[in-house]
Amino acid sequence: MLEELKEKVFKANLDLVTHRLVIFTWGNVSGIDRERKLVVIKPSGVDYDNMKASDMVVVDLQSGKVVEGDLNPSSDTPTHLELYRNFPEIGGIVHTHSTYATAWAQTGCDIPNIGTTHADYFHDAIPCTDDMVKEQMADYELNTGVVIVDKFRKDNINYVHTPGILVKNHGPFSWGKDPDNAVYNAVVMEQVAKMAFISFSINPQTTMNPLLVEKHFNRKHGPNAYYGQKKK
Amino acid sequence: MLEELKEKVFKANLDLVTHRLVIFTWGNVSGIDRERKLVVIKPSGVDYDNMKASDMVVVDLQSGKVVEGDLNPSSDTPTHLELYRNFPEIGGIVHTHSTYATAWAQTGCDIPNIGTTHADYFHDAIPCTDDMVKEQMADYELNTGVVIVDKFRKDNINYVHTPGILVKNHGPFSWGKDPDNAVYNAVVMEQVAKMAFISFSINPQTTMNPLLVEKHFNRKHGPNAYYGQKKK
Amino acid sequence: MLEELKEKVFKANLDLVTHRLVIFTWGNVSGIDRERKLVVIKPSGVDYDNMKASDMVVVDLQSGKVVEGDLNPSSDTPTHLELYRNFPEIGGIVHTHSTYATAWAQTGCDIPNIGTTHADYFHDAIPCTDDMVKEQMADYELNTGVVIVDKFRKDNINYVHTPGILVKNHGPFSWGKDPDNAVYNAVVMEQVAKMAFISFSINPQTTMNPLLVEKHFNRKHGPNAYYGQKKK
Amino acid sequence: MLEELKEKVFKANLDLVTHRLVIFTWGNVSGIDRERKLVVIKPSGVDYDNMKASDMVVVDLQSGKVVEGDLNPSSDTPTHLELYRNFPEIGGIVHTHSTYATAWAQTGCDIPNIGTTHADYFHDAIPCTDDMVKEQMADYELNTGVVIVDKFRKDNINYVHTPGILVKNHGPFSWGKDPDNAVYNAVVMEQVAKMAFISFSINPQTTMNPLLVEKHFNRKHGPNAYYGQKKK
Repeated sequence: MLEELKEKVFKANLDLVTHRLVIFTWGNVSGIDRERKLVVIKPSGVDYDNMKASDMVVVDLQSGKVVEGDLNPSSDTPTHLELYRNFPEIGGIVHTHSTYATAWAQTGCDIPNIGTTHADYFHDAIPCTDDMVKEQMADYELNTGVVIVDKFRKDNINYVHTPGILVKNHGPFSWGKDPDNAVYNAVVMEQVAKMAFISFSINPQTTMNPLLVEKHFNRKHGPNAYYGQKKK
Repeated sequence: MLEELKEKVFKANLDLVTHRLVIFTWGNVSGIDRERKLVVIKPSGVDYDNMKASDMVVVDLQSGKVVEGDLNPSSDTPTHLELYRNFPEIGGIVHTHSTYATAWAQTGCDIPNIGTTHADYFHDAIPCTDDMVKEQMADYELNTGVVIVDKFRKDNINYVHTPGILVKNHGPFSWGKDPDNAVYNAVVMEQVAKMAFISFSINPQTTMNPLLVEKHFNRKHGPNAYYGQKKK
Repeated sequence: MLEELKEKVFKANLDLVTHRLVIFTWGNVSGIDRERKLVVIKPSGVDYDNMKASDMVVVDLQSGKVVEGDLNPSSDTPTHLELYRNFPEIGGIVHTHSTYATAWAQTGCDIPNIGTTHADYFHDAIPCTDDMVKEQMADYELNTGVVIVDKFRKDNINYVHTPGILVKNHGPFSWGKDPDNAVYNAVVMEQVAKMAFISFSINPQTTMNPLLVEKHFNRKHGPNAYYGQKKK
Repeated sequence: MLEELKEKVFKANLDLVTHRLVIFTWGNVSGIDRERKLVVIKPSGVDYDNMKASDMVVVDLQSGKVVEGDLNPSSDTPTHLELYRNFPEIGGIVHTHSTYATAWAQTGCDIPNIGTTHADYFHDAIPCTDDMVKEQMADYELNTGVVIVDKFRKDNINYVHTPGILVKNHGPFSWGKDPDNAVYNAVVMEQVAKMAFISFSINPQTTMNPLLVEKHFNRKHGPNAYYGQKKK
């Protein structure tokens, strides 16, 4: 079942390796079939080298139960499901321990929007979640999703316009309209995290011209976007 | 038309990938035919993997209208045209979001000339443009060119001797006598930006021996240049 | 003799190159046959390109005498043996001069546990040994092992849960249940060292949520581990 | 003439690319035939991709005149010759603009000896030359050699035990018993420069245990060296 989505999720997982966002098994991509309320996700702890599209695991959006697949789904599955349940417009999710985004996550700091590379894909600062508290440790992976959703709600951030977050002391999650787009945003986040590290090392007082945020974001998104190829 | 120039511009765009200056579609190279007043430029948002020389778009230097080509030209085309119109000695232009040059651009700081690697190709500090103001946002790409030209005029910098600039909170533009030479200068800029970041991290008081600026620049440029192979 | 172990040790040494942990001959991996009390280790100063499995040297755990092999064993052999004699649960050891872990070792600072990437594999901070004193210089390589063991004893660190250390002004040693696992931990250490360097550059006040240390370590280790594929 | 040395110098030049020490034509290796007092060096400004062993240029040690070869020798030839004339025990010289060593050179700071990776190959800090003065600009490349030799003499540094230097605001020179060994030392210098940058970023008070300097240098050099494979 869901062979096409499995193929997409499988390919997107391999793209994490191509883009050097993961070593070993440290990452996972999922995709969702919104109509059937089923999520396809990478199996847990399986080498990218030996992985096949048919190894992808199908789980139920609500219950998290495995619907199809011989392997355990990624241990981060409850996080993915919580995001899909709360962010209805997303079709794919990525989690990695990519070097620079993870380093920012470790600091507990948001990645400020200081350039057009950032503004082209993330309208606001890439937020960092608050510390998890003791009661949240029991259902740790589920609650990782909960603190992500809380952060967007509490700070009134649009999850479509800012498609990613840092989980404090852990690493980045990103999402998009499909698995491929979520990987794209994961690559952007890593690159933006690297450049912000360098910029603040050079000039701790680095700031953004706020006019550029609107301009660049709207060049690529929104009703009057004009980047790329359109029907003429 | 302009098949030879299209081939050069196409190849120069691929060279950005080879030199690791771009990921995805984040860069563009153009070249100009000065006699015919036509500019050849990369199409907007097209993957480097699938791009062909025949996809290059021909636009009119003055009007910016597409003269030949089925695809939209790079959204940065008005910037390129403004530079060609004001810098009559240049034959090629490159724009990238290369990591270290972009990080410097984000800080709003010039890259000081602190070594012979820099002085060999850029006579002065690589300048950073001023903030754009609200009125400039409507014609954003055109005005990106305007603030670049303004910076060179205002600070009396020779655009042939310092063939590149950082656009504040955005990224680097470089140029040269042809598309290939503009790519060369983009590679130099990225390398110089990386080394300056490291040098200032090691020693914030880093300065240049001014005697070396003249010596090294003149070794490679000017009437008595003696680097490389000459007719004997 | 010990052909299987030689093959494993040989392959693990090549993996150091694949994971970019060594240049030239700057690293070594060993493995132990606990029943026969014999250690298999890389020969000293031999290029990875020309090395064969049969070049691996077999040495006696207690005496350090070469039992089989035409080449000199790694000059670090006495360090490996001291670790095997004092850490009875380990089956493989790795030493490298990998860039970021070595840079931390040079500083004399422990690598604090500031993220789940670290906590997934190293329960505590990765410790750094104390300075060696003059009397220890005579039997330098043996005493490198001695100061490592001392550090774990003195600070009451569990060598199974924190499978690696920095030797001050020198570089990292790591270990594991077999040579492969020791290489895995060497890769983790290098990645963790790199990310910690970046995190502290961004935010010198970076700290860890202590709840995450237990949670993440126990996800992958201990009686209730649930990461990866288990028999269902 | 000197076909064997040309082959060695040619190969050593290509190794600079393999070890990622140069981009474009930014580096050169030479070798000397001490008996015939002839130096073989890379031609100036020739692409590594198109270079052949027969392109290497033979110049006279004393006069610097081209003895054989159709191309101009490297513009840095007078520096190489000055080093060969004053450092009689060296057989090969390398100059690059490798990233981290050049960044240190730009700062004007010595690279302190803070680890065994450094001490294994460079006994002392890697020195940085003093500023050149106006009178030295006329014979710039010759005087680059002069300031290098001056630095070793003035500070009483042994050029065999510390086989390299940083030229202020310029970049590294290294040497060795032959061209290959000079490239090896250039790689060490770049790696040591990178690790020192990271170490001082982590801990500006980083210092070396002086006991390790003697121990590690003597492990690989001097009468009682025991690293690598010896006749038993």
